[in-house]
Amino acid sequence: MSCGLKPLTLVLGGARSGKSAFAERLVEAASPTRLYIATGQAWDDEMRSRIAAHQDRRGAGWDTVEAPVDLAQALETHARADRPVLVDCLTLWVTNLMLGERDVTAAFDTLLAALPGLSGPVVFVSNEVGLGIVPDNAMARAFRDHAGRLHQLIAALADEVHFVAAGLPLKMKG
Amino acid sequence: MSCGLKPLTLVLGGARSGKSAFAERLVEAASPTRLYIATGQAWDDEMRSRIAAHQDRRGAGWDTVEAPVDLAQALETHARADRPVLVDCLTLWVTNLMLGERDVTAAFDTLLAALPGLSGPVVFVSNEVGLGIVPDNAMARAFRDHAGRLHQLIAALADEVHFVAAGLPLKMKG
Amino acid sequence: MSCGLKPLTLVLGGARSGKSAFAERLVEAASPTRLYIATGQAWDDEMRSRIAAHQDRRGAGWDTVEAPVDLAQALETHARADRPVLVDCLTLWVTNLMLGERDVTAAFDTLLAALPGLSGPVVFVSNEVGLGIVPDNAMARAFRDHAGRLHQLIAALADEVHFVAAGLPLKMKG
Repeated sequence: MSCGLKPLTLVLGGARSGKSAFAERLVEAASPTRLYIATGQAWDDEMRSRIAAHQDRRGAGWDTVEAPVDLAQALETHARADRPVLVDCLTLWVTNLMLGERDVTAAFDTLLAALPGLSGPVVFVSNEVGLGIVPDNAMARAFRDHAGRLHQLIAALADEVHFVAAGLPLKMKG
Repeated sequence: MSCGLKPLTLVLGGARSGKSAFAERLVEAASPTRLYIATGQAWDDEMRSRIAAHQDRRGAGWDTVEAPVDLAQALETHARADRPVLVDCLTLWVTNLMLGERDVTAAFDTLLAALPGLSGPVVFVSNEVGLGIVPDNAMARAFRDHAGRLHQLIAALADEVHFVAAGLPLKMKG
Repeated sequence: MSCGLKPLTLVLGGARSGKSAFAERLVEAASPTRLYIATGQAWDDEMRSRIAAHQDRRGAGWDTVEAPVDLAQALETHARADRPVLVDCLTLWVTNLMLGERDVTAAFDTLLAALPGLSGPVVFVSNEVGLGIVPDNAMARAFRDHAGRLHQLIAALADEVHFVAAGLPLKMKG
């Protein structure tokens, strides 16, 4: 029934901040059945081992769907009132859109348009990447801009926003 | 009249965090007339397009002054009780000081000395840049040190300090 | 005596965030005698001048011990109920472990195991480094992962956790 989970939650944090574990606990506390939408693709060994570590931690009670690019479609297809969705993570999705030379702005519009009509609650996890020095290369700057813009768009719609550091959540909204 | 704006406000945030938009709303809510002091210089197309986007968003009711280097002087000349000032942003000012081979510490001292005597309220916007990996090059490390030191100096004097992430403000002081 | 200092405190912040000065004030307010455990090693001029600036600021009332690698041992040897310890900083310790090709996971385990049995309160200072763009080089990514993991482990045990930006503390726990 997803008690306690509002329709839309955003969990932001840095690398190894504990943001995914925090988001998983939110979803696990809300429902015995839940869906994990993975945006990550195992294109090298480092990525494969990160994905495996995440899977080990999640354990039972999770269905998994991969949606490296077509995230709005995956949400519309799979969201259900009795099965909250965890999307981990938005920054990898943005990376996949850019590497796949998709229209990032159009993809954001499609995702934002889909959110209000979903049949069940969604928790998005994403990396805050804008608090370091301006990156040297233009692609990294564009990525940082896209990610920051997406976070603002989703946070504006979200019922709850949490910022996680050192495994500790700080509620920014809700 | 600047109702609701205290004499000195600092708005910190990452790239594309929504810090400028938040600061603009603070100033717009306080007064129908306001001054925008731009520290940015349009030295390439990327910068030109960022500046144009900021101008479009601000709309009417704003006067604009450019002060890439002589920021204390611009504040002393233009601050007025009936026209709050938004300075966007301190990190670009630090960049301009460094590229212009100015004495950064002396420039900070001059700015800090000017603040208590200004005739009207000021809101400073700045980028938090110290939360990533230590940069490889010495100039970026020096920039990060200068920016962090300036933030501490202004925050110590400020009546209000906000940290913005994903468009959401977190009040750190005030 | 250490009035007001809980057994375990973590102070996180960015570069030049004022995290060390904040931690020093915490410890100085708690006790007239205190121990500074320095993990930094003066291997170049930039580092030497940073260390000297920290020493100048701390002033009298501090004993100093250097523990670039054997941090758990230094804590076990030197912690005393009447002399709180400030460890500055964990990220330099992680750097030293990696450069010394030590087993980082084993060193974390040893440190974590030592903490509950110490005879006096400890305040750890550390750099949050995970909020920028993913670094290009694998060593920097590994460092970021180690640091983030260590922060989570210590924050889970800590009685108080503070995040410092622009010299202003935000209490995350305690």
